[in-house]
Amino acid sequence: MDREALAACADEILARLSAAESPVLMVDVEVRRFGLEEQVAALARRLAIPVVTSLMGRGLLENADAPLVGTYLGLAGTPEVSALVEESDALLLLGVIVCDTNFGVSARRVDLRRAIQALDGRVTLGFHTYPDIPLASLVQALLERAKPLASAKALAPVEAPRGLTRDGAPVTPLDVARALNDLMDAHGRMPVATDVGDCLFTAMDLVQTDHVAPGYYASMGFGVPAGLGVQAASGRRPVVLVGDGAFQMTGLELGHCARHGWDPVVVVLNNGGWGMLSAFRPDAGYNALGTWNLAGVADALGGTGHLVNTRAELAQALESAIAHPGRFHLLDVRIAPGDLSPSLRRFADAVSRLHA
Amino acid sequence: MDREALAACADEILARLSAAESPVLMVDVEVRRFGLEEQVAALARRLAIPVVTSLMGRGLLENADAPLVGTYLGLAGTPEVSALVEESDALLLLGVIVCDTNFGVSARRVDLRRAIQALDGRVTLGFHTYPDIPLASLVQALLERAKPLASAKALAPVEAPRGLTRDGAPVTPLDVARALNDLMDAHGRMPVATDVGDCLFTAMDLVQTDHVAPGYYASMGFGVPAGLGVQAASGRRPVVLVGDGAFQMTGLELGHCARHGWDPVVVVLNNGGWGMLSAFRPDAGYNALGTWNLAGVADALGGTGHLVNTRAELAQALESAIAHPGRFHLLDVRIAPGDLSPSLRRFADAVSRLHA
Amino acid sequence: MDREALAACADEILARLSAAESPVLMVDVEVRRFGLEEQVAALARRLAIPVVTSLMGRGLLENADAPLVGTYLGLAGTPEVSALVEESDALLLLGVIVCDTNFGVSARRVDLRRAIQALDGRVTLGFHTYPDIPLASLVQALLERAKPLASAKALAPVEAPRGLTRDGAPVTPLDVARALNDLMDAHGRMPVATDVGDCLFTAMDLVQTDHVAPGYYASMGFGVPAGLGVQAASGRRPVVLVGDGAFQMTGLELGHCARHGWDPVVVVLNNGGWGMLSAFRPDAGYNALGTWNLAGVADALGGTGHLVNTRAELAQALESAIAHPGRFHLLDVRIAPGDLSPSLRRFADAVSRLHA
Amino acid sequence: MDREALAACADEILARLSAAESPVLMVDVEVRRFGLEEQVAALARRLAIPVVTSLMGRGLLENADAPLVGTYLGLAGTPEVSALVEESDALLLLGVIVCDTNFGVSARRVDLRRAIQALDGRVTLGFHTYPDIPLASLVQALLERAKPLASAKALAPVEAPRGLTRDGAPVTPLDVARALNDLMDAHGRMPVATDVGDCLFTAMDLVQTDHVAPGYYASMGFGVPAGLGVQAASGRRPVVLVGDGAFQMTGLELGHCARHGWDPVVVVLNNGGWGMLSAFRPDAGYNALGTWNLAGVADALGGTGHLVNTRAELAQALESAIAHPGRFHLLDVRIAPGDLSPSLRRFADAVSRLHA
Repeated sequence: MDREALAACADEILARLSAAESPVLMVDVEVRRFGLEEQVAALARRLAIPVVTSLMGRGLLENADAPLVGTYLGLAGTPEVSALVEESDALLLLGVIVCDTNFGVSARRVDLRRAIQALDGRVTLGFHTYPDIPLASLVQALLERAKPLASAKALAPVEAPRGLTRDGAPVTPLDVARALNDLMDAHGRMPVATDVGDCLFTAMDLVQTDHVAPGYYASMGFGVPAGLGVQAASGRRPVVLVGDGAFQMTGLELGHCARHGWDPVVVVLNNGGWGMLSAFRPDAGYNALGTWNLAGVADALGGTGHLVNTRAELAQALESAIAHPGRFHLLDVRIAPGDLSPSLRRFADAVSRLHA
Repeated sequence: MDREALAACADEILARLSAAESPVLMVDVEVRRFGLEEQVAALARRLAIPVVTSLMGRGLLENADAPLVGTYLGLAGTPEVSALVEESDALLLLGVIVCDTNFGVSARRVDLRRAIQALDGRVTLGFHTYPDIPLASLVQALLERAKPLASAKALAPVEAPRGLTRDGAPVTPLDVARALNDLMDAHGRMPVATDVGDCLFTAMDLVQTDHVAPGYYASMGFGVPAGLGVQAASGRRPVVLVGDGAFQMTGLELGHCARHGWDPVVVVLNNGGWGMLSAFRPDAGYNALGTWNLAGVADALGGTGHLVNTRAELAQALESAIAHPGRFHLLDVRIAPGDLSPSLRRFADAVSRLHA
Repeated sequence: MDREALAACADEILARLSAAESPVLMVDVEVRRFGLEEQVAALARRLAIPVVTSLMGRGLLENADAPLVGTYLGLAGTPEVSALVEESDALLLLGVIVCDTNFGVSARRVDLRRAIQALDGRVTLGFHTYPDIPLASLVQALLERAKPLASAKALAPVEAPRGLTRDGAPVTPLDVARALNDLMDAHGRMPVATDVGDCLFTAMDLVQTDHVAPGYYASMGFGVPAGLGVQAASGRRPVVLVGDGAFQMTGLELGHCARHGWDPVVVVLNNGGWGMLSAFRPDAGYNALGTWNLAGVADALGGTGHLVNTRAELAQALESAIAHPGRFHLLDVRIAPGDLSPSLRRFADAVSRLHA
Repeated sequence: MDREALAACADEILARLSAAESPVLMVDVEVRRFGLEEQVAALARRLAIPVVTSLMGRGLLENADAPLVGTYLGLAGTPEVSALVEESDALLLLGVIVCDTNFGVSARRVDLRRAIQALDGRVTLGFHTYPDIPLASLVQALLERAKPLASAKALAPVEAPRGLTRDGAPVTPLDVARALNDLMDAHGRMPVATDVGDCLFTAMDLVQTDHVAPGYYASMGFGVPAGLGVQAASGRRPVVLVGDGAFQMTGLELGHCARHGWDPVVVVLNNGGWGMLSAFRPDAGYNALGTWNLAGVADALGGTGHLVNTRAELAQALESAIAHPGRFHLLDVRIAPGDLSPSLRRFADAVSRLHA
C-alpha cells in the first residue's frame, strides 16, 4: 500500500465531509469482516456524524458507543431514516455492498455517483477512484485526522416498537416484534437468528441485538440451524424467527436439541403459505401450503409446542419459554395470510408501484 | 452409424457367446434409459441365456418375461449369483455402468477385459473397440441373428425371503424384507422408493418390483420425496424405505400428504444413528443420533404413526396401513444398532478384509 | 501396454493379410519418427509384401533392403503404383498420416475403412480399434509371427527417368529430374532439400535418396535454409530444388555459405511466377513475378551463378558445379510458364476434373 | 461516458498544470491512433507548454504548428530534453505507452506517480484514477478550458546535426544523419522507414519528417518492405535506413522495385555484424556476419549499388540517387564495427552502468 495515496485519499474524504451540509455515515458487512467496529464507532463519535446501517449491516455497532440512528431500508424503511440517507450531500459508505438487498428498490433514490464509497479495497468519490486503499488503513487514517464536523446533525435513534396489548385479537408480525422487545426489556437481550421472508423484515423492528440472517443470498431454511449454531457457538439462548415455509425445509433439525441441551425459542410466523411470494404475486396459485400442526411436531421432537392464536397467548407462551428453559419451545403463531409487517408492506407496495 | 460395422460387431459378439461354456447377460441402466426392456427380454429368451441385473439395474425386466436370476452384488450378494457372474467365460454387459456401486468391492473378481461391454455407444471385447455402436441398434442386430446358445444354463431365480414370524422378537432388517414380501404376496406389488444405507441393501431382498433409489450418487434424503413423487406421477401407493438419519433430512415433507391425498407406507429403519457409517467406522464417535419419536411426528403431520418394537407389531402395523388408506402411515421400526441386513453385513465384512 | 492386446492385434492383422489376394504395405513418417526403418524393412522381406511410401514418406527405406516399389501419389502418381494401392484388398498402413498431402485428391479411391491402419498408438481394422498399440511394439510383434504371404506379388520398382538429351531445347521440370539422376548415377547420391511447389513434384522423379521437404504444412522458403542445414549437420554436399517464388523469401541466406565453406548446388526452377498457384488458378492476375537475374545475385553473394536456358546448358552447369566445389553454385534454370512436371500436371488435371 | 466525470477530470488536470513551476507535455502513439494531432497541437499552443515526443512518438506533430522541443530518450537522449522531462513537476503524458522502449533505461528518473497519465481510456493523477475518459474527449475538454500557463517555458527545438564534411574519412552513423539532413535541406523532406538497431537511433538525429519504425516489438527486417509500402501507399520516394543484419532478412524484396517502378534510397549501415547486440554483449562470439557485397546484389536486382567507404563517397552517392530516380539505389555504407551513433553509445553506456 502506498502511504502517500492513503493520505491523499483520507484528506480528500474529510475535505468533502467538512464542506457538506448533511454528512451521513452508512456501515455494512466489511466493517464486521475486517473487525473494525470499535474503530468505526470512534470515528463516528469524533466526527459527530449520524450513523445508519444497511439492511445487511443490521446489528453492526450494537455493542459500540456510536451515534446510531437506525437501519436504511429505502422505500421499505422508516421515513426519517430514508430521508436522512437520501438527502445527504456527503454519504460516506464504509464497507457497504452495493446490491439489491441493500439498495434494490431504492437505488434511484440514492445518487451513488455523489456518495463516497469505500469497498473492496478501493475508494471512489467525485468520479475518480483510489485503487488500493484497504478499509482498515482508511479508517485508521481518517481517525488520525478527524475533527468534529460543524454541520453534522445529532439525531435520536429510531425507537423500536414495544408494549404489546395482551388481548384476544389475532397476532400480526408487528405484534411479534413488540412482544420480543418487551421480553428482552424484561429479561435482557437475546441473540436472534432469522430466516428470509417477512420474518427478516419483522426482525428490523426488534431492538438492536446480535443478529444473523441470510440477507445476501436469501437462502431459505437458514433460521433453525443458524439458531442451533448460535447456541452451540456462544452458549447463549437464541430467538429464532422463521416462517412456516422455511420451517418445512429444516425445522426437523430441532430434534437434535435434546441430545445437546439446546433450548432456543423458535417463533414460527405461520400464515399457511409462502407469504413473501404471495405479497409480490398475489394471484399465483402455488403459494398456499395448508396449515400444519407445528406445535405437535415440537412436542414429538422433545420440545414444548405452543399454539398461539391471540396476542395474549403470544405473551404467555414467551413467558412460559423463559420460565421453562432446558428444552426448546416452539411458538406456532398463526398469522392471517396477507397480514404483513409494516416494512414488507411498504416494500411490496413500492415494488407494485414500480411495476405498475 | 455404419451398418457394416454394426453387423461385424453383432457377429463377433454372437460367435463369442456361442463358443463359451457359461455365457451370462447382465443388464443395467442404459437398458431402461433407451427403452429396451422388451427387446432385451426377447433377446434373452431367444438365446436362453441367464440374466442378472447390476445393483443399479435392480428392478429392470421386472415386468418382462425374461430368465432373470437375480441381482449381482459381488461379495455382498447371494453366492450363487456372484459365482454365476464371476465364473462366466462370456459375460455380456448391456448398458452396465462400470462404477463403484456396481462393481466396487468386487471389481477384481470380474475380469472386465474378458467381458463384452456395450456402453456409452461403444462395444469393447477381446482388447478392441467398435467405436460407434448405439445400444438400441446393437440389441436389434443381435435379435435379428440370435439362436439358442447350446451351453446356456437354465437357472431358477433367487427366491426372495418370505414368511415373517410374528412374535415378540426384535425386528431385523431381514424381517422388514420378509414382512414387505408377505404383504405384497397378499395384496399385490407396490412400487418402492428407498433411501441410501442399509435400507438400500434391505430392498435387494424384496421381490422384484418397481424400484427407485439414489444408487449412483448415494444422495441421502432421497427416499421420502421420491416416494411422494412416485405417487404423484403414477397414482400408485408406494412403500418408502428410509433410515432415521436420512429421515431427518427430508422426512418433514410428509406434511404435504394431507393436502394432496397421498398415503405412502413409510418404513423407517430406526437404529438411532448413521448405521452404514457405523458399519464401516465402528469406532467413530459421531454416528449416534439418539432415538427420536418419529411416530409422534407422523401423527402431528396428519398421518398415522406406529411404534414397532417386535416382529408381531411389524406385521400388524403393515396390515393396519393397508386397511386404512387415505393417509400416510409411518412405521417407526426400532432396530438394534449394529443389526444389519445380510447384504450389508457381507459387504462390510468384505471391506474390512480388504482394509485389513 | 497390455501384451495380450498386442498379441490379439498382431494375430488379427496377419490373419487378414494371409487371407488377402493382394496385400500391400505403405509406410509414412511414424516409421522414421520411431526409428523403425530397419525393422519394417525386415518385416517386408519376411512377408515378401510389396512396399510403397506415401508422398510424405518419400525417402523412407532408401538405405534399407526392402521390396520398395515407389511412392503413392494417387491421381498424380505413376499409374502402376496407384493401381497397386487402390486395388489392394489388404492395405497395411504403418504410421501413415491420413491427410490431404498423402491422400487429398485421391481419398475416395482408397477405402480406408477396409485398410489396416496403425497410427498414433492405435490400430484400426474391420470397423474396430485396438486403442493402445505403440507402433514399435506392433512391428516387433508382427516380426515375431510373420511368414511369407502366399499371395504377395513381387514387383519391380518404378524406374526413375534418366538420360537427358543435351540439346538446345528449352528445359522442362522432367529434364531437371533426368539431369540430376544422370549426375547422381555418375557421381553418387547426394542429399536433396526441396521447397514446395513443382520442385516438390519434380523431386518425386529423382532416384531414391535422402530427402527433406516441407510436405505437411507446405511452408514456402524452406528449401535453401534446409539445404544449408543438411550440409551443416551431415557434412555432405546437398542439392537444393527451389522455385523462384520461394527463392525470394530466403534465397539471400546463401550469402552465409562463404563464411562456413558450404557449397550446395542450388537449382532454381525459374518460371517467373508462382507456378503451382498458376496451375490451379490460371486466370489469377497476381502470379507473375517478372524475371529476376538470380545468377547475378549468386555472383554478388560469393557463389557462382549459371544462367541455364537449354538442356545442354543444364548438363554443363551441373558438371561445372561438380567440378568446382568449395563455393555454392546457383543454376537459374529458365522454365516456360505453364511447363509442369508430369506429376503436377496429372495432379492439376485431377483437381480441375473434381471442380468441374 | 459521464460528462460530469470528464469535466471534473479536465478541471483537475488544468489546476495541477497551473500550479506547477515547470509543466511539460509528452505525446505518444495514441495521439496518432485517435487522430488527435491537430487538436493536441492547438492545446499545446493555447497552454504555451513545451512539447516532447516519446521515442515511439517520434514523427508526431511534425506537420503541426506546435512548440515541439525534441524526443525524450532518457539516458540515451539529448541532455536538455532529458532534464526538461525529468525535472518537470507536472508532466502531462497524452497517450504515452509506458514501456521499455519509451522509458526502459530511464524509468527511475521519471516519477510516474507524480505525472498525469492519460492512456487506454483512463486518466491517473495524484494517486487516483478517472476510469472512463477517452483521450479524444479529454483533449477536447482541455481545449475548451485551456488558458496560457504562466510558468510554461518557451524552449527552442533541439537542432538536428547538419553539414557533412566531404572528405576521405570513414563514415560514422552520425555522418549518415548529417548527410541525409543536408540532402533534405537541399531537396525537401522525404519519408523515412527504419529498421531496428543503430539505424533507429541514427534516425533520431534526422530532421523531423514522416517516419515509420518497429519501435514497440523491435521486429528485424521491417525496414526494406516498410519502405516499399510507404512508396506504394503514398507515392513518395522514401529513404530506408537498415543495418546489414536486418537486410539479410528481407533485402531481397528490392527485386520487386523494377516491376512497380519504385525507387527508394536504401542506406545500409554495413558494419559486418549484429551491431546493437555487439554493443550490449561485446564478448559474444556470434555477432560477426562477414562483409557481403550488397552493392553487387543491388545491381543484380535491377537497382544501382554504391559502395561507400568515405564521407565524400556518401555525399556523392546520395546526390547520384537523387539525380537518377526511377530505380532503387542502395548505398552499402561501410561502418567500422563498434562505431555507434551518439544515442546508442549513451544508451549502451547507461545499460553497462546499470549492470555493473
